[in-house]
Parts: sequence; C-alpha cells; structure tokens
Amino acid sequence: MKVFVIGTGLIGGSFALDLKTVMKDVEIYGIDKSQKHLDKALALGVIDYQAELEDISQADLVYLAIPVDASLKLLPQVLDLVNDDCVVTDAGSTKEHLCKMVEDHPKRRNYLAGHPIAGTEFSGPEAAIHELFRNKTNIICEVEKTAFKLQERALEVFQNIGMRIRYMDPVSHDRHIAYVSHLSHISSFMLGKTVLEKEKNERDIFDLAGSGFESTVRLAKSSPAMWTPIFNLNKKNVLETLDEYISNLENFRKLIQEDNFEEVYSEMEKTNHIKEVLNGINKNELKIAENGK
Amino acid sequence: MKVFVIGTGLIGGSFALDLKTVMKDVEIYGIDKSQKHLDKALALGVIDYQAELEDISQADLVYLAIPVDASLKLLPQVLDLVNDDCVVTDAGSTKEHLCKMVEDHPKRRNYLAGHPIAGTEFSGPEAAIHELFRNKTNIICEVEKTAFKLQERALEVFQNIGMRIRYMDPVSHDRHIAYVSHLSHISSFMLGKTVLEKEKNERDIFDLAGSGFESTVRLAKSSPAMWTPIFNLNKKNVLETLDEYISNLENFRKLIQEDNFEEVYSEMEKTNHIKEVLNGINKNELKIAENGK
Repeated sequence: MKVFVIGTGLIGGSFALDLKTVMKDVEIYGIDKSQKHLDKALALGVIDYQAELEDISQADLVYLAIPVDASLKLLPQVLDLVNDDCVVTDAGSTKEHLCKMVEDHPKRRNYLAGHPIAGTEFSGPEAAIHELFRNKTNIICEVEKTAFKLQERALEVFQNIGMRIRYMDPVSHDRHIAYVSHLSHISSFMLGKTVLEKEKNERDIFDLAGSGFESTVRLAKSSPAMWTPIFNLNKKNVLETLDEYISNLENFRKLIQEDNFEEVYSEMEKTNHIKEVLNGINKNELKIAENGK
Repeated sequence: MKVFVIGTGLIGGSFALDLKTVMKDVEIYGIDKSQKHLDKALALGVIDYQAELEDISQADLVYLAIPVDASLKLLPQVLDLVNDDCVVTDAGSTKEHLCKMVEDHPKRRNYLAGHPIAGTEFSGPEAAIHELFRNKTNIICEVEKTAFKLQERALEVFQNIGMRIRYMDPVSHDRHIAYVSHLSHISSFMLGKTVLEKEKNERDIFDLAGSGFESTVRLAKSSPAMWTPIFNLNKKNVLETLDEYISNLENFRKLIQEDNFEEVYSEMEKTNHIKEVLNGINKNELKIAENGK
C-alpha cells in the first residue's frame, strides 16, 4: 500500500511510524512545504521517500496532517489529483468548514473526515513518536458520504494502530471540541502570559513554580501555526466557551471579593466531580501502558 | 529526635515517611483532628505513635501541615506548649498572616515559617509518598527571627530529605505564589466547571477529551478544605492575579472576535517562551528521577 503523508510533523510523522510497524508492504511517501522537515523525516526513518503533490495519483491512502487553514486550501486539490480508488483522510481539529469546502467535489466519496484526539505540545518530525494513537479516539464525520470500500480501508488502518472510532456530525464535533480542547489551550496560553508579564517586574517568580503550575500551563507550549487557524475556523464556538469561562471566573472572583467563602468551597467541591471524568480518561491511558512496549 | 507531625495527610505524611527513611533515631508522633486519619497513618507506618496536643512539650521538632486557617489558630497554642529547645515549622501556602499572628509571641524564636513547593492533587494519609520533597523548594520566611540553633536543626532536616532552600519575606512570598500557584488552581477549577456545566446539556462531551484537557484540569481535583482558606488569606493578591488573567482572556477574546489573527498568533508565540521556563522546572524533576529509587 502506498501511503502519502502530507505534513510530516508530530501527527503525520507518528501516523507514518505506526503504519510502518503494524502493516506489511506499506511505503510511506512524505510531502511537506518545508524541505528541512522532509529531510529530517527521511533521516529519522519516519518516511521512506520524499514526494511532490504531482506524485499523489499513485496513492492508495493520503493522510493530511497540516494546519486546518492549509488543509482547507489543499484538500480540494488533493481530491482533484488522486485516483478513484484512493482514500484521503485528515487530522484537522475543526471539521465543519472542511466538510463544507468539499461537499460538492466530484471526488467527495474519496474523502473521510477525521480528527484524532491525540498529540503532545511538541511539533515537527522530531516530535513524531510510536503509538501516539493507541487507545485514542478518532472522530469521523459524515462517514456516509465516503465510498464504503474506502471507509473500510481507512478504518482498518485506524484499527491496526489501536484507535477507537466515534462518529459525529461536523457541527457537533466543532462545538464539543471547543470545550474539551480549544478552551483548555486558551486558558493555558493566557495563564502563561499572565505569569510571564508579572515576571518582567518581579524576577525569579518561576523559581517558586511547582508541578501544578507546569501541568496547567503545559499547553501554552503548543504551536501558534497550528492553533491560530483553529481559533479562526471555530470562532463562533470558541467565543461561546470563552464567554462562559470568563463569566465563571468573574463569578468566582466576586465570591472571593465578597468573602463568600462558603460558596467558594462549594464551587470547588462540585467541580471535584471532574475526578471521575478524568478517571475515565486515565483508564484509556492505563490501557496504553499495558498494551505498550 | 522526637518529631510531632500535626496533620497526617499528603504533606505531613510524606514528610514523616522521608524522615523515617533518611534519619536515624527519629520517632514520629502524629496529631490529627480526624481519628480516622490518625488510625490510617499508623496502619500505613506513616507515624509511629498517635499523640495529643498536650504531649507536644516532648517534641524536638513540630511540623504543622494543616489548612492555613487552622494553622492560624493552632500555631500560637503550639508555641505556648513546646519546650524552649523545640523548633516549630510549617507547610502553609500563605505566610503573611501566619507570621503576623505570632510576631509578638514570647516563643517567636521557636518558629521557622516555611512553604514547601511540593504536593499532588490528592489528600489524606493514603496520599503520602516517599521523596515528595526531593529537589523541591522550601521557601523560608523571616529566617532571622528564628533562634540560630533551631534554624540549623530544621534546615538539616530539610537538607536530608533533599530540599533546596529559598529565603523570602512573607509579603513577597504571598504575592509571587498567587501567580505561580493560586491562579493555576482557579484557572483549572473554573475550566473544569465550565466543561462540566456544558456536559449537563450535551452528553458524552468527555468522550472527546484527551491528555491536553486532562493536564489543564488536573488541579481541579484539589481539596476545597485546603484551598478555600488560601484564597481567603491571600485575598488581595489572588484578586489581583485574577483581574490580570481575566483581562488577558478578554483581550484574546476581542482579537478573535475582530478577526485579528495576526495578533492572536503573536500572543501565542510570545507565550511559547514558557517552554524555557518549564525546562528549568523539568531539570529539577529530572534530578528527582535520577536520584529516586
């Protein structure tokens, strides 16, 4: 099987690494607008060959793993170029615009819209790791619009690298993911900004930071090139989650201001329910540890 | 050496465990208002004996590891009861009120104000772990007010369990720690609240949550009994950090609203500088891994 990975960074690179491990007779062709990334990906054994967009007619599967605004431009071109028996799938963090962009494309049936809930705060081919996708969720949108045998090929690949599948319409996807992913990134970036600004006037403030701060601010290391188009393409939902978040912060601020510490306690106690939710996520992580090498 | 640990939870319990490992001839007496905690701490070998406040005159070192509002009440009583050659130190997350409370106490010289930047989101004797303090910072306030030989005794213990020491005045401590610790907790609690509220109307939202969300919301598992008095006693600084955080969020919201994505990119790129800061913290964590068992 000839697999073309467009974008040989964290996601595309990790996808390539796993495919080479779990599937026989797979050849990985890398396409990247950065020649440096491409050379690095080849040197690290993440890809087998460097390729150009024109070569893509040979592909059996194309994995599009670039920032969502770039995907929006490239996906129609890729569909133009692929052969009738090729499945094109992607890793974009917003799905509504992408699905809309190709809804009338003559090769719409060759596209399977996906979003793997997997990643780290690092980027580039050096960030690619084995088993990034094991026991993670791949959200598939508008599955019914993809040709049945092409769905099957892509889903077999996802299953082979250990992903579980959830089906969802693109509008719901973008709304839900704004809460559990996009808002976390903004809260973390702004926390980082607030503390960095303070440090300008008060040196050595980070000397006092512990693992709690580190955990909360981890996502502020994420790539602006990836996240700017996500906030752009999911603007409506992101603004809504931000409004709710700011309103909750203002309410909490008011409770402290007014010395209503009974209610401050109660707010935190209710939110402790997140423990059970996180235990659910952790169960998956545990499975990864058990299944991993 | 007879060590009395008041509060046999995560911090007091971990302190006791390490002392028993690294120091010879140490006897750990536990005091806790919860008999259940005390029984658990004894059963787990965290403490050697259960004790009452009246027994504390035998102590060579007292470690006060209870919520800060409780410390505020108990510290003067403890100082009343200890002998002249006993050092009393504590783990309270705010220091200004505590130092003020005992500034005119006849036994002020027996008290060393401390704040170990160490912990997890768990609580109770079961949460006590070995080497919690290794390569972590213990912030000492108003060291000059403690009798020299009592400073020495406490610092030797801290050194034995692997802590590094930073000296700071209580007012600066409370201001700095509001940024790198107290604000992280509020941002995390309110993120958890925002997503939990959304889940009421939109089920299965957490099915989409990944490790990024988990990391950002981890501190929302923390104990309300510990954190409510911290926000109370550090009210002024916490309100200030919260104002700056909310203002940064509102500004970021405005940039998205106005489609100023160039500036959105730039804000995130500048905040990426947090990477270098976190690498500093990580170096300590690495040392822990190397020195650990």
